[in-house]
Amino acid sequence: MLHRIVGVTVRDVRFPTSSEQHGSDAMVRKSAALATLRRHSDPDYSAAYVVIDTDCGLKGFGLTFTLGKGTEIVVCAVEALAALVVGKSLQEIVNDFRGFYRLLTSDSQMRWLGPEKGVIHLATAAVLNAVWDLWAKAVGKPLWKLLVDMDPKQIVSCIDFRYITDVLTEEEALDMLEKAQEGKQQREEQMLKQGYPAYTTSCAWIGYSDQQLQQLCTDALKSGWTKFKVKVGADVEDDKRRCRLIRQMIGPNNTLMIDANQRWDVAEAIRWVSNLAEFKPLWIEEPTSPDDILGHAAISKCHNRVMFKQFLQASALQFVQIDSCRLGSVNENLAVLLMAHKFKVPVCPHAGGVGLCELVQHLILFDFICVSASLHNRMCEYVDHLHEHFASPVVIQDAHYMPPKDPGFSCEMLESSVKRHQFPEGEVWKMHK
Amino acid sequence: MLHRIVGVTVRDVRFPTSSEQHGSDAMVRKSAALATLRRHSDPDYSAAYVVIDTDCGLKGFGLTFTLGKGTEIVVCAVEALAALVVGKSLQEIVNDFRGFYRLLTSDSQMRWLGPEKGVIHLATAAVLNAVWDLWAKAVGKPLWKLLVDMDPKQIVSCIDFRYITDVLTEEEALDMLEKAQEGKQQREEQMLKQGYPAYTTSCAWIGYSDQQLQQLCTDALKSGWTKFKVKVGADVEDDKRRCRLIRQMIGPNNTLMIDANQRWDVAEAIRWVSNLAEFKPLWIEEPTSPDDILGHAAISKCHNRVMFKQFLQASALQFVQIDSCRLGSVNENLAVLLMAHKFKVPVCPHAGGVGLCELVQHLILFDFICVSASLHNRMCEYVDHLHEHFASPVVIQDAHYMPPKDPGFSCEMLESSVKRHQFPEGEVWKMHK
Repeated sequence: MLHRIVGVTVRDVRFPTSSEQHGSDAMVRKSAALATLRRHSDPDYSAAYVVIDTDCGLKGFGLTFTLGKGTEIVVCAVEALAALVVGKSLQEIVNDFRGFYRLLTSDSQMRWLGPEKGVIHLATAAVLNAVWDLWAKAVGKPLWKLLVDMDPKQIVSCIDFRYITDVLTEEEALDMLEKAQEGKQQREEQMLKQGYPAYTTSCAWIGYSDQQLQQLCTDALKSGWTKFKVKVGADVEDDKRRCRLIRQMIGPNNTLMIDANQRWDVAEAIRWVSNLAEFKPLWIEEPTSPDDILGHAAISKCHNRVMFKQFLQASALQFVQIDSCRLGSVNENLAVLLMAHKFKVPVCPHAGGVGLCELVQHLILFDFICVSASLHNRMCEYVDHLHEHFASPVVIQDAHYMPPKDPGFSCEMLESSVKRHQFPEGEVWKMHK
Repeated sequence: MLHRIVGVTVRDVRFPTSSEQHGSDAMVRKSAALATLRRHSDPDYSAAYVVIDTDCGLKGFGLTFTLGKGTEIVVCAVEALAALVVGKSLQEIVNDFRGFYRLLTSDSQMRWLGPEKGVIHLATAAVLNAVWDLWAKAVGKPLWKLLVDMDPKQIVSCIDFRYITDVLTEEEALDMLEKAQEGKQQREEQMLKQGYPAYTTSCAWIGYSDQQLQQLCTDALKSGWTKFKVKVGADVEDDKRRCRLIRQMIGPNNTLMIDANQRWDVAEAIRWVSNLAEFKPLWIEEPTSPDDILGHAAISKCHNRVMFKQFLQASALQFVQIDSCRLGSVNENLAVLLMAHKFKVPVCPHAGGVGLCELVQHLILFDFICVSASLHNRMCEYVDHLHEHFASPVVIQDAHYMPPKDPGFSCEMLESSVKRHQFPEGEVWKMHK
């Protein structure tokens, strides 16, 4: 079956997570807390949500994560990219996936709008995520399993090596993947049994009171969590008090990470972080601009493989945070996983938002089974919200991501959720007016 | 007068420069040649064109340059930013221009779409360019003169130093500007008399025949041009032949630059360029990805001040190419001019496209008069097309940009041109269907 793509639709789906209302809706009540998530003081967690229709009735679902306002710009960008997708068959795409990736990222006119960054790259991710979902569904496997079962040659054929060959060539990538075939079977079984280790960001949002923080920490410890991330960067005395409190709660052997969400300039970051050093954070996340390679971020979410390449070359990060919706989908994440492996830097994916946990778990499972073969210093972020809107939500057991079983990339949202949250015409937004 | 902003409109204006048609329209005939401009094989030179309306009837015009497809995405982004602008007065904005810049670039929800890169940053540039045009018109001066007459304190108050303080602090910037006050008057007179040196990119597009190239070179030499840029990167033997030809035409004392438009990976760039070294190019422009600081581009157009900062820190460029429409308008270009001065790297602006020459001449005049005070190894790109659509087109005399005299930022296009070229409803596009 060719699965010819006959249509691409995209919708602007927003969850009113910035709301202060205490309505009867559980989601809305929960979201008052979410409002304090980030330096973004009032995010409405959102998605540009893509559905690919094929001539045989099979659908591919994809999304990219956004924060509310401006989602309509990403929707507009997806519509522009759709023209490059409609009419192609899945077969044709996956037979030359590198070429298809290049087609989307190097359109001679649209390339100016990036290249491979910002709105146009987010839109590219949403479209490609839907294509990967379609592919996984067409073969009846969850995406991670599709990847794990792929021949190294075929994996490599999905990656665009442009601009990274000084660090990673196609031959080298193939060699790495072939070497990692050994023990693959056992690692897959290990994952199916134990799952992939996770850490939680749900306990220590910056706006929580000390009491809330203590309660959430107690609950999380009871549920088996051992790794905790704390949001910092607003007030240094406040940060010290909160880090001290959490370190006391979790004890010296559990893991603490801190995240400044791009809050500081370089000198300020150094000063601030030395104030928090006594609490022994494993990493400092996004101390400064995501563009600042030479500012020596300790860990970083980058927007494309060329940025990741340099962070690795400059030894400017000690942990790599991949992202399923900011990078160019599976294709570009594969390139980053391989480069991280080459530089022996552990990958600890960024998740949370809407659907980021659902998507990225597939990539990190593949990383363990087929690339890194190690769990040392590795863990995947977990945030406990908005999963209820997905057709195949993540399954967490004892602080581990359990491998998804349903075919696809876990991007599909419940149609009822999409309808209710479509912006601005959905029921939820009419209520908020 | 407060000049309260009562409306922001934005239009998608495209010039069919990719057209192969040989119609009777001079612009269209010229554009067959333009089609070969770039690695972009078929650019339709375009703009998201912004008009700011005020309560007193004064208008500000601004634009950002694009390549055709996807301009509608930038239009959509401008519309999203417009909400942050309407209702403010010019007075309020310029009293805290840094704050206004931060407002546009750091909206808590839209920041996710960049920050400060791609579509959202292009839109920011278009809006801010219109605000600067409005300001210059309100004081009745061309923009360069507004800047030159500004107190160093006020200049510094327009710059957002976030993420660059490790290289340039506000105090340092102020100090540099104060030192450069000496001799300002003479330099302004010098500019008014002689203009700012330009180089031409109009002679050696990659698709020109050798005969065309010889003819254009001969004509340009006659008109006083001494500096020439050649597009390279498609075929190395072809490049050698063309560079040899031009070097023969212009002789050993004139200047030759080459531009690869991001064509190569790092190793490839080194190989290719050593093949062209015998023709003694002054610089190699964009040999590889614009994100690749460590790939050691010799010259670079960056998308924000944080990228420029690192290229300078890493000594990865020997020339800085500012851009009036990719960076966040005058505000961010000021930061880059000051950093370039600190690192003693000459600024040679990127121009061409639609309106880039018109806008960037203001910035480079300011650089000479108030920052660098030097013309050594400095020149501003010039491309001879589409100027006829502007209300105050550039004036080139003897290969120099003559300082604009009309109030404003020279962004205003002829309304008749805008109407004819609006996409898709303008007359020109109806003809092209």
